[in-house]
Amino acid sequence: MNRVAFIGLGNMGAPMAANLLKAGYALRVFDLNASAVAAAVAAGAVAATSAIDAVADAQIVISMLPASRHVEGLYLGDDGLLAHIPDGVLVIDCSTIAPASAKKVAAAAAQRGLAMIDAPVSGGTAGASAGTLTFIVGGDASVLERARPVLAAMGKNIFHVGDSGAGQVAKLCNNMALGVIMAVTGEALALGSAHGLDPAVLSRMMAVSTGRSWATEVCNPWPGVLENAPSSRGYSGGFGNDLMLKDLGLAAEAAMQVGAPIPLGELARNLYAINSQAGNGGLDFSSVLKVMTKAV
Amino acid sequence: MNRVAFIGLGNMGAPMAANLLKAGYALRVFDLNASAVAAAVAAGAVAATSAIDAVADAQIVISMLPASRHVEGLYLGDDGLLAHIPDGVLVIDCSTIAPASAKKVAAAAAQRGLAMIDAPVSGGTAGASAGTLTFIVGGDASVLERARPVLAAMGKNIFHVGDSGAGQVAKLCNNMALGVIMAVTGEALALGSAHGLDPAVLSRMMAVSTGRSWATEVCNPWPGVLENAPSSRGYSGGFGNDLMLKDLGLAAEAAMQVGAPIPLGELARNLYAINSQAGNGGLDFSSVLKVMTKAV
Amino acid sequence: MNRVAFIGLGNMGAPMAANLLKAGYALRVFDLNASAVAAAVAAGAVAATSAIDAVADAQIVISMLPASRHVEGLYLGDDGLLAHIPDGVLVIDCSTIAPASAKKVAAAAAQRGLAMIDAPVSGGTAGASAGTLTFIVGGDASVLERARPVLAAMGKNIFHVGDSGAGQVAKLCNNMALGVIMAVTGEALALGSAHGLDPAVLSRMMAVSTGRSWATEVCNPWPGVLENAPSSRGYSGGFGNDLMLKDLGLAAEAAMQVGAPIPLGELARNLYAINSQAGNGGLDFSSVLKVMTKAV
Amino acid sequence: MNRVAFIGLGNMGAPMAANLLKAGYALRVFDLNASAVAAAVAAGAVAATSAIDAVADAQIVISMLPASRHVEGLYLGDDGLLAHIPDGVLVIDCSTIAPASAKKVAAAAAQRGLAMIDAPVSGGTAGASAGTLTFIVGGDASVLERARPVLAAMGKNIFHVGDSGAGQVAKLCNNMALGVIMAVTGEALALGSAHGLDPAVLSRMMAVSTGRSWATEVCNPWPGVLENAPSSRGYSGGFGNDLMLKDLGLAAEAAMQVGAPIPLGELARNLYAINSQAGNGGLDFSSVLKVMTKAV
Repeated sequence: MNRVAFIGLGNMGAPMAANLLKAGYALRVFDLNASAVAAAVAAGAVAATSAIDAVADAQIVISMLPASRHVEGLYLGDDGLLAHIPDGVLVIDCSTIAPASAKKVAAAAAQRGLAMIDAPVSGGTAGASAGTLTFIVGGDASVLERARPVLAAMGKNIFHVGDSGAGQVAKLCNNMALGVIMAVTGEALALGSAHGLDPAVLSRMMAVSTGRSWATEVCNPWPGVLENAPSSRGYSGGFGNDLMLKDLGLAAEAAMQVGAPIPLGELARNLYAINSQAGNGGLDFSSVLKVMTKAV
Repeated sequence: MNRVAFIGLGNMGAPMAANLLKAGYALRVFDLNASAVAAAVAAGAVAATSAIDAVADAQIVISMLPASRHVEGLYLGDDGLLAHIPDGVLVIDCSTIAPASAKKVAAAAAQRGLAMIDAPVSGGTAGASAGTLTFIVGGDASVLERARPVLAAMGKNIFHVGDSGAGQVAKLCNNMALGVIMAVTGEALALGSAHGLDPAVLSRMMAVSTGRSWATEVCNPWPGVLENAPSSRGYSGGFGNDLMLKDLGLAAEAAMQVGAPIPLGELARNLYAINSQAGNGGLDFSSVLKVMTKAV
Repeated sequence: MNRVAFIGLGNMGAPMAANLLKAGYALRVFDLNASAVAAAVAAGAVAATSAIDAVADAQIVISMLPASRHVEGLYLGDDGLLAHIPDGVLVIDCSTIAPASAKKVAAAAAQRGLAMIDAPVSGGTAGASAGTLTFIVGGDASVLERARPVLAAMGKNIFHVGDSGAGQVAKLCNNMALGVIMAVTGEALALGSAHGLDPAVLSRMMAVSTGRSWATEVCNPWPGVLENAPSSRGYSGGFGNDLMLKDLGLAAEAAMQVGAPIPLGELARNLYAINSQAGNGGLDFSSVLKVMTKAV
Repeated sequence: MNRVAFIGLGNMGAPMAANLLKAGYALRVFDLNASAVAAAVAAGAVAATSAIDAVADAQIVISMLPASRHVEGLYLGDDGLLAHIPDGVLVIDCSTIAPASAKKVAAAAAQRGLAMIDAPVSGGTAGASAGTLTFIVGGDASVLERARPVLAAMGKNIFHVGDSGAGQVAKLCNNMALGVIMAVTGEALALGSAHGLDPAVLSRMMAVSTGRSWATEVCNPWPGVLENAPSSRGYSGGFGNDLMLKDLGLAAEAAMQVGAPIPLGELARNLYAINSQAGNGGLDFSSVLKVMTKAV
């Protein structure tokens, strides 16, 4: 199980592929972006001429794509990859997509007799580079066991949360909570600041109190509080506002599907949409603080 | 600095006073509830006949009362305690009240020449019993230094966050974040459950991911996920829904005062109000999950 | 232009078809519900054995179906109606569906050379029975002119709001506003009532002030204020809570598609979802007031 | 009943006083703004040197002030007007203030033996100038009857909604609905526009459909749709964003007092706060549309 076809070398896929190469896997890679492919080749990968070419000799197929339509477009249809992947190959989709799409593709893979899991990740580009991603896996436990070594080469934690599509659901639940937590942390710091408190002092208190979170401990939205947070470098280089907006949109769709109320999740979605309208869609999602105050 | 007047022996005040007694402080206590006083006396305190009687011989006055009006009623006015506290006594109010009330009482104390800090707490009744409270202090740094030993006998962390009233602002900021985080964690677990995921598995994943919080780590709102959480004992015995509702109301008032937007904080306030309307005001605040799903 | 194929005899479709019969149109009708068909036949329609049978001899096709998937299922695909409708026939879809679905079906019709408009309605079952519906039309103005007489037999107002799909967008915009207005009117009446005001007196004042709306004038959510409102007969017989929930879900999807923030629209969606969770999904949507107060 | 003391000649008070003069009332006026007083004098009023001076000879006292603290400051306290108003004089406060403040002042007036009503208005500066205001009255019905002639000289509709303070509650309920309705109308027009619809066409449709309101009929938030709306003159000259923000804050306080959930009202409050943060606090409140779209 050494030969991997890796499809999608974006901000997340590229460092994930790099970690596989470091771990000794043989990679055939494909991406529409030639310079991304060139960088992977420089690191030891072989460039495939197409996705179909990439999987020809593979034992494992890994995809990391932006959205449902790309994943469905890649795998499904008469021209789709599922028609070309050799028997016995393990398929792992790491994209964050709609649970319904993940189920659809997994069902098609099953019909082809291929083992497939959905394995979206948590940890961002920093985690992808450091090889400390969390994989949130939906699919058969036995298939996950086969995938475990290759996932372990890219991440630190692996959670099996249920059947096909469950990985996507769990990822969306986590990111919905994260999106809300970041925005309310911004609200709290802006409120404290407007009352004359130092956001750094307030953050340190909250970080060891019941209001603590990844937003107070790792990615504080107020500039200068945490040196390594995107907010301290002009909100650049983290998890983009519009990516959070996408995930909250997927969460809203998943909620509509089952009639679940998510009032805070959908309100947060709108706060990120308002931040995007204001021209901050490309900044780190912690820039949603700008909706609450003109001080940052 | 050994003689303490302790006013207010409620769910929080009683265990705090007990810890002071254990640490060797001499306490004169006052509360309208005779059985609360009797319990403190059994643990070594002396019963005062009134608040004024309690402070007659004190070196430190500590109050722990339900709301702004009780604190203002205790200290202010012609009959108020500030007119009766001996010179040189240190005054510590641990109640969670409106920042404006805290400032008003502190200003009146200053006019009397008395040193006073606002020191609301985080940690709940469990933290009060264990002596692991966090004190969030507003007032002069030098006054806090005088108060530090007696606070240390009741808690673990002490944060100095600014001038008079700042302790209250910071407490409200923390609790606003907490109220929102609890509610969105409920949304996430209800959404996952409606999609067939096991809330316990989902919670374990979130607890080590970016969506982690005190709600996933300590006080999970889904029954049975964390054995010691209020949700696992019928939502009894924690921090009441209507106490969170009160704190979010204070946060809203503080936000209005300075024109700060807190959309998520105010929406959460309404979710707790809806839960209260449904008859769950006396349950732990994690019961807000009941607004999102009929499964609990 | 006298021969109409009418597909879909539900709560809305049945009275619309009845009004066409009264106006002298010859109808061939189809619905899966045999008793709905029987009622139409009793009123003068001819029963078709299938949708394809219904259109065989038609000059106009009108469909009134519950959701996007039904409309796409009816018209599209190898078996779809578009493959069977004779050349030159005018196609009118009155269903409320996703704008994207409406565009998709209209594009397929255009490819077949058929003229089609989307013409969702406003006015509810009462308007359908009385023949006072408002039609909100997307498509070519010239096609609308051909459709005008048959629409006029079912309604009072006809608005041409843009190209294919625009009728659906406008309908969703109107219903999103309506859903929010109804819910906030409930908030206002519950707030006034909790302060001791008579909701009837408060409603009469609001109905002639700046807070006036269809909710204060026609469909007051407080029982007993307006005799003919659903609230005065146990919230029965109006526009169902879950139908409003569906429309607000379509509005949310339409908003996500273009990145438009609709914070109030999505919050209202969640209030109707909470009302549905509480078991009131089948009641009139004005029962969302039950989320705000236990007094009704 | 011809001699009126009129306190407060702001944007609302000035035209109200002018209408009283036109109707033949004799006015002694007071305001801190000398030019406002001069304008009233030019129209026939007599300038008082103080509020106390204004009431010396009055049969009716009318006040129109910005906020609770001004009204309490005017009437209450040892120096307050209630101590100086002659016996038998009728007191009418037209300010929009907290219901609790209105009750407090009315109770103090009752203790003095003075008849008083709260009579906040709806209709804006346009209604004040045209003499078409709506008065929303709390207090004894018999007192309202005495006040009716003088109110009729300034307005068109008079609603008696309950006891002292009820006028304020009803006004806040109406304005809360209005604030939400305006904002969701903005959401709807921005959503339609983003989908390519003409906001003017969409508005015309909504104005005769179930989504209709004062926002579609009189004060459309989209520039150019209604010629006389503030939006068509740069959002100038209507009811200011920060005045709506104040009223929604009063509504939130009134809701907290009785535990009533007003989720949409409080979310709207935050949207106006966000608009204010963006620098639009002085514009007409329909400028909240700017939060939803960059197109205006």
